Amino acid sequence: MYEILKNVNSPQDIKNLTAAELETLAADIRGAMMNRLSKHGGHFGPNFGIVEATIALHYVFDSPKDKIVFDVSHQCYPHKILTGRKQAYTDDDKFGEVSGYTNPEESAHDFFNVGHTSTSVSLAAGLAKGRDLTGGNENIIAVIGDGSLSGGEALEGLDFAGEMDTNFIIVINDNDMSIAENHGGLYKNLKDLREGGGKAETNLFTAMGLDYLFVPDGNNIGQLIEAFKSVKDSKKPVAVHIVTQKGMGFEPATVNKENWHWHMPFDPETGKGKFDWSGENYGSLTGDYLMKKMSADKSVCAITAATPTIMGFTSDKREQFRGQFFDVGIAEETATALASGIARNGGKPVFGVNSTFMQRTYDQIMQDVCLNNSAVTFIVFSASIWGMSDVTHIGIYDIPMISNIPQLVYLAPTCCEEYIAMVDWAVEQNKYPVAVRVPSNGVVHSERAFPTDYSELNRYEITVQGSGAAVIAAGDFYQIGEQTVSELAKREINATLINPRFITGLDSELLDSLKSAHRAVVTLEDGILDGGFGQKIAAYYGDSDMKVKCYGFEKKFYDRYNAGELLKELGIVPEKIADDIIKMLQ
Amino acid sequence: MYEILKNVNSPQDIKNLTAAELETLAADIRGAMMNRLSKHGGHFGPNFGIVEATIALHYVFDSPKDKIVFDVSHQCYPHKILTGRKQAYTDDDKFGEVSGYTNPEESAHDFFNVGHTSTSVSLAAGLAKGRDLTGGNENIIAVIGDGSLSGGEALEGLDFAGEMDTNFIIVINDNDMSIAENHGGLYKNLKDLREGGGKAETNLFTAMGLDYLFVPDGNNIGQLIEAFKSVKDSKKPVAVHIVTQKGMGFEPATVNKENWHWHMPFDPETGKGKFDWSGENYGSLTGDYLMKKMSADKSVCAITAATPTIMGFTSDKREQFRGQFFDVGIAEETATALASGIARNGGKPVFGVNSTFMQRTYDQIMQDVCLNNSAVTFIVFSASIWGMSDVTHIGIYDIPMISNIPQLVYLAPTCCEEYIAMVDWAVEQNKYPVAVRVPSNGVVHSERAFPTDYSELNRYEITVQGSGAAVIAAGDFYQIGEQTVSELAKREINATLINPRFITGLDSELLDSLKSAHRAVVTLEDGILDGGFGQKIAAYYGDSDMKVKCYGFEKKFYDRYNAGELLKELGIVPEKIADDIIKMLQ
Repeated sequence: MYEILKNVNSPQDIKNLTAAELETLAADIRGAMMNRLSKHGGHFGPNFGIVEATIALHYVFDSPKDKIVFDVSHQCYPHKILTGRKQAYTDDDKFGEVSGYTNPEESAHDFFNVGHTSTSVSLAAGLAKGRDLTGGNENIIAVIGDGSLSGGEALEGLDFAGEMDTNFIIVINDNDMSIAENHGGLYKNLKDLREGGGKAETNLFTAMGLDYLFVPDGNNIGQLIEAFKSVKDSKKPVAVHIVTQKGMGFEPATVNKENWHWHMPFDPETGKGKFDWSGENYGSLTGDYLMKKMSADKSVCAITAATPTIMGFTSDKREQFRGQFFDVGIAEETATALASGIARNGGKPVFGVNSTFMQRTYDQIMQDVCLNNSAVTFIVFSASIWGMSDVTHIGIYDIPMISNIPQLVYLAPTCCEEYIAMVDWAVEQNKYPVAVRVPSNGVVHSERAFPTDYSELNRYEITVQGSGAAVIAAGDFYQIGEQTVSELAKREINATLINPRFITGLDSELLDSLKSAHRAVVTLEDGILDGGFGQKIAAYYGDSDMKVKCYGFEKKFYDRYNAGELLKELGIVPEKIADDIIKMLQ
Repeated sequence: MYEILKNVNSPQDIKNLTAAELETLAADIRGAMMNRLSKHGGHFGPNFGIVEATIALHYVFDSPKDKIVFDVSHQCYPHKILTGRKQAYTDDDKFGEVSGYTNPEESAHDFFNVGHTSTSVSLAAGLAKGRDLTGGNENIIAVIGDGSLSGGEALEGLDFAGEMDTNFIIVINDNDMSIAENHGGLYKNLKDLREGGGKAETNLFTAMGLDYLFVPDGNNIGQLIEAFKSVKDSKKPVAVHIVTQKGMGFEPATVNKENWHWHMPFDPETGKGKFDWSGENYGSLTGDYLMKKMSADKSVCAITAATPTIMGFTSDKREQFRGQFFDVGIAEETATALASGIARNGGKPVFGVNSTFMQRTYDQIMQDVCLNNSAVTFIVFSASIWGMSDVTHIGIYDIPMISNIPQLVYLAPTCCEEYIAMVDWAVEQNKYPVAVRVPSNGVVHSERAFPTDYSELNRYEITVQGSGAAVIAAGDFYQIGEQTVSELAKREINATLINPRFITGLDSELLDSLKSAHRAVVTLEDGILDGGFGQKIAAYYGDSDMKVKCYGFEKKFYDRYNAGELLKELGIVPEKIADDIIKMLQ
């Protein structure tokens, strides 16, 4: 087991291996990844496809002096295995020692903490410029997948690189897939290049000013070594286009590439997942709602930036709604602008996006949508402490980011029924850009009645009328608010509970009315406090006698935390909040 | 005068003109623009270059049914003149009737309020999709300059368009210039295409999946009409590459294209500017500082995204600092990522950017820089109510935007000497990403002493020790704070004055210490209040007895306002603030 890998603790250890030994090493790396991924889950297809290329890179170049930057780093596992971190793959007790992404805190062979797509070329171009400013002479290599090329930052980076007059190597790892299938005109050119052995009528890379080298079999270590040797120490920027097979080495992953881009734990014999995820979730609820709506109204359309399944659009559904479902590629900026254009010409666009990726289109939200008051509906997923917990994918920064953009209406539903009511209003109205924050505390159902019209902005709802203290509990923290009020009731305080519904504005009438019978207000939000919702309430009451305390998260980069423990640590639990309120009332 | 133009009130009025009359119309349009621009200032070169193309577009297409979207809309004046708004150019009393950008509130021929670059292709693609969703059959045309092609959103848009199976026309207005010269590898391809009569070894547009048509003389109305007729009602996306001369028709503007991209009022005979702008300003102060620094330390570099002169790098200076000055094109995302890479490899990068354009790189600031804690220095210009006043270029949204990103240190200097001290510290240290907010209230000098080290974060400075009330006055609102304290002194209140210096965090020790002898705190910031600095102070004091009031701007899109009047309207004047404080103390 791990016949060659067992002796490999750094890239230096592979420099003298024979061709046959390198092949065995590739098999060992796949074995190590299979061990971790079948038990722990993670990015499967990208890592299984890039094993040979990673071996060849480390065989030819001298990491960490030579610097390799992996785009989005979905494909960095073989690199981690070869750079001193193999135990996190071979030894089940050590799975926790590595993150799923490149991470300078783990290794001198990693240069950036990366989890967002399309950044590698520009980041690595910076390393190259830094080298030139300080008189270094190392090779700088960016590794970027074909899917990532659709992102604006990557295309900007290629353009910038094309004018660099210095060593800079860009490896295009072309497996003919994004997370789902690729979208965009450039993929026709990549196909032509693949089919023409690197020759075609036109060439995106040379059009960007780069030299170009084609490697027909990017899973052939010999071909790769030869190619990388030929560009090593090059004094000009060059794109090396390698053709790889996503998921190579595990049949289920090569048959259904989309499902195996990332995979939860599975049986390595059959590929069958170990957990049943078939319960109710907001992805499929959203998809069901949208598909019904789109069937009934042909002007409704759904937009994704390469993550169609977050709103339930599996490949069959995408096919079924072909003319109304648009995947723009990993191009959030274009998704947002496209939505604005659609709204301005009679369509009803819905852009579903994870909170962390919505960051990639801040200016378009402000300028292309809000400044033009285009009636776009954004559905914001994973905007929660219960969302993705990798530092690169945290979703709790969205409230300060978008709720301070003029014109935008940001709604925070407290349960499933309110969520659907809000989305439906957003889609049907044409007065405002609206974002809806999808709850992430499981699918909570409610029998409360919800309005179908939210056009009177910033009207909060008192759901429990009390006195003394008021709890304003936004979105999926509403249930914590409910529990806090129950806890206070046990202590003979009948507090008021409020569902603010709108997190972009203040219900000043309601807030003023609280002054007569309340002395304390607490706010709860599933996001960072700085620049968020609660601070607006606190500032509103700033020159009054009302005492205000805000609950939410610190302005910091959380990483691989346990949500329950974090909530406890920050005192965002009903008993603790009730204690604080009692103190405030004293 | 205005021989043909006098009878043109809508595009319909040009449909039956002869070739000779169209030429006269072109001269009339240039005359009208010369009238306005020589007296009022505005974008010169882009508009003078696109006169013929605009005439041809309106001759061939049927606006507003057919929809033309102008990228950044620096070049929309001829379009405005032909679509019912000529008086704003010919009649000096009506200059105020139009904005400098396309604006749906002005005319049914405008579809978006646009002032940021690289958005037209994606926005227009949305109009095309909207048309298809609702069964329309009009032509959709995006007009984009060569300079704008370096922006990620534009490149994403071309890629997306390449896969559209419907009518979509992209006019590439290639005048071989951005605001300054172009940067990026793709411009070599454009040059080859220009020189090869539309033929070259490779072609960016066909590589993106688009059909391609070349028009050698984009200032020849006949050639343009023929080309546009050939693509009208096309059922496939097509790029029409037209070669124009920036500034055509006014010699000074064709000789010095950079200076004449935008121009202040001038003498139409000589081109000489009417105002003297040679006084001290933060652009040249920044340039002087940086150039001295860069000469002394070869690892220091300056980065711009196509606006080099905002920090004083005129073309001669760019040449002088060739290896240390990087213009990435209109590509803020790449500028930010590049800076991060440079910092990670030993360089000291300084990225100077206008507040409004910093919005274009939110995710890179967070992920590429702050998450990696790269010691990048951002210098943020025009982040002020005294900055640019067009709705598309307002700079008062930056505090909520970036100050809530973890790790970032945002410094707000109160005067010239403090500004230089802060920038110098930012450049020399390697612990934090730092942004410095350039004052915009003129160059104020101070004889106060300023620290050279700001590494102990969030330490505010008490500049006047008083009691009762404290005024926390950030950045270029510090002088309003000073005046408020003077005003209070006249009324026998000796208030405390505080320069917070840091707007990303709280000096809790100092804030706590105020509690003993102060009952009221006011905050002043030159930005919107929502999500900003003052609300953090208000929230901090939320459960105490301290009364807090925050002064700043509303969360709205201001447009072409008068700063002095706006400040008065919002009560951000010393006398009014003093009145409020006295009420708070009662």
